Amino acid sequence: MIKLVVLDVDGTLTDKSRMISVNAVNAIRNLKTKVALVSGNVLPVLYGLKIYIGFDGYIFAENGGIALINNNIEKFFEKDGPESFLNDISGYTSARGILTNRWRETSMAFTANHDEMDIIDREAARRDLYIVDSGFTLHILNKGQDKGFAVKKMMDIMNIDYNNVLVIGDSQNDESMFSLGTLSACPGNASEKIKEMSNYVSGKCYGDELFDVFRHFDLIH
Amino acid sequence: MIKLVVLDVDGTLTDKSRMISVNAVNAIRNLKTKVALVSGNVLPVLYGLKIYIGFDGYIFAENGGIALINNNIEKFFEKDGPESFLNDISGYTSARGILTNRWRETSMAFTANHDEMDIIDREAARRDLYIVDSGFTLHILNKGQDKGFAVKKMMDIMNIDYNNVLVIGDSQNDESMFSLGTLSACPGNASEKIKEMSNYVSGKCYGDELFDVFRHFDLIH
Repeated sequence: MIKLVVLDVDGTLTDKSRMISVNAVNAIRNLKTKVALVSGNVLPVLYGLKIYIGFDGYIFAENGGIALINNNIEKFFEKDGPESFLNDISGYTSARGILTNRWRETSMAFTANHDEMDIIDREAARRDLYIVDSGFTLHILNKGQDKGFAVKKMMDIMNIDYNNVLVIGDSQNDESMFSLGTLSACPGNASEKIKEMSNYVSGKCYGDELFDVFRHFDLIH
Repeated sequence: MIKLVVLDVDGTLTDKSRMISVNAVNAIRNLKTKVALVSGNVLPVLYGLKIYIGFDGYIFAENGGIALINNNIEKFFEKDGPESFLNDISGYTSARGILTNRWRETSMAFTANHDEMDIIDREAARRDLYIVDSGFTLHILNKGQDKGFAVKKMMDIMNIDYNNVLVIGDSQNDESMFSLGTLSACPGNASEKIKEMSNYVSGKCYGDELFDVFRHFDLIH
């Protein structure tokens, strides 16, 4: 029995330009099961989505680094490492921080030229950090800080098992939660790797898959 | 000719529990005119709305204290006064800060027992601050920091006149922009004072008025 539905945001509830699907909003509002949003984005942006979509559940921001749990903000990682990494690497590569870093507390996000990713990845590894691509921006994170960490944290809090959880996502930074062994689904626009890892691949895309996925897993009728 | 549509958020795009109207989202997406959100809420929450609704325009947060203008964040007031006011007054009244204060940069928001508002208002005035009620929370603001200030700022930037602007809002913290002399409209759930100040009062409520208002002013067909 599914007791928690974990949703990625960008590409899973939204289209490529990040406009949210009103069908996705309606699907979440129709769901009786507890919902969590788990995203690389910052906590206040997810807090806004929680309020304005209007659901009862958890939000984990910065790929699991910080969360709102029962109206308390909990921080699980620090931003010192990611911040000094980005400061340094901006000096000799094309890496540039993005606007939302103002509100990050446990990671940094940036853009960079594709052909410099090798040096950037190597420098991250040397500092015990790693880089993940949400499909919208690059994230520099602490070791162990990923969406899988967030899902395990919620399973602990709710005292539930892998088969009580359904994860839905579309891209590289979702892989850590798809490999846990929970139930899983993805939209038609997901990466090939995520499709291979999914129990169910919807034919619908960019948020319009939610009703289809929820029906497939018997969560709505 | 209307060149800018200024929208309040809570109660104007949302219902009483703050769930956003999908009709309002669709109405904004159908509008060809430039849009601004002006709210007492924090900048990253409005930034999320801008991204996920998907519109080109301005966002002014904290009742005009801070804004995102052409991808730059501009701060027009400071939070020192509001912050020390709230620290002090929490010591001897029921006033308590709310979660989103973590992301406030120019004001503070709080809840308080209604019967203490006289002492709280007097202390605010003594410090050259003032309190406004959004209908959802109380805001302690610097003198001159209001939605009217935000609208005038945008008129300067766009070099447009009062008759080029349509403001839409529902409650006390919208009055400063309704008194400027622009065009104005409100949902059926607006306060009596806002209804009196409006050129057009829609029969529809909580976000569902947007299509009606836009049609009334010939902005969509």
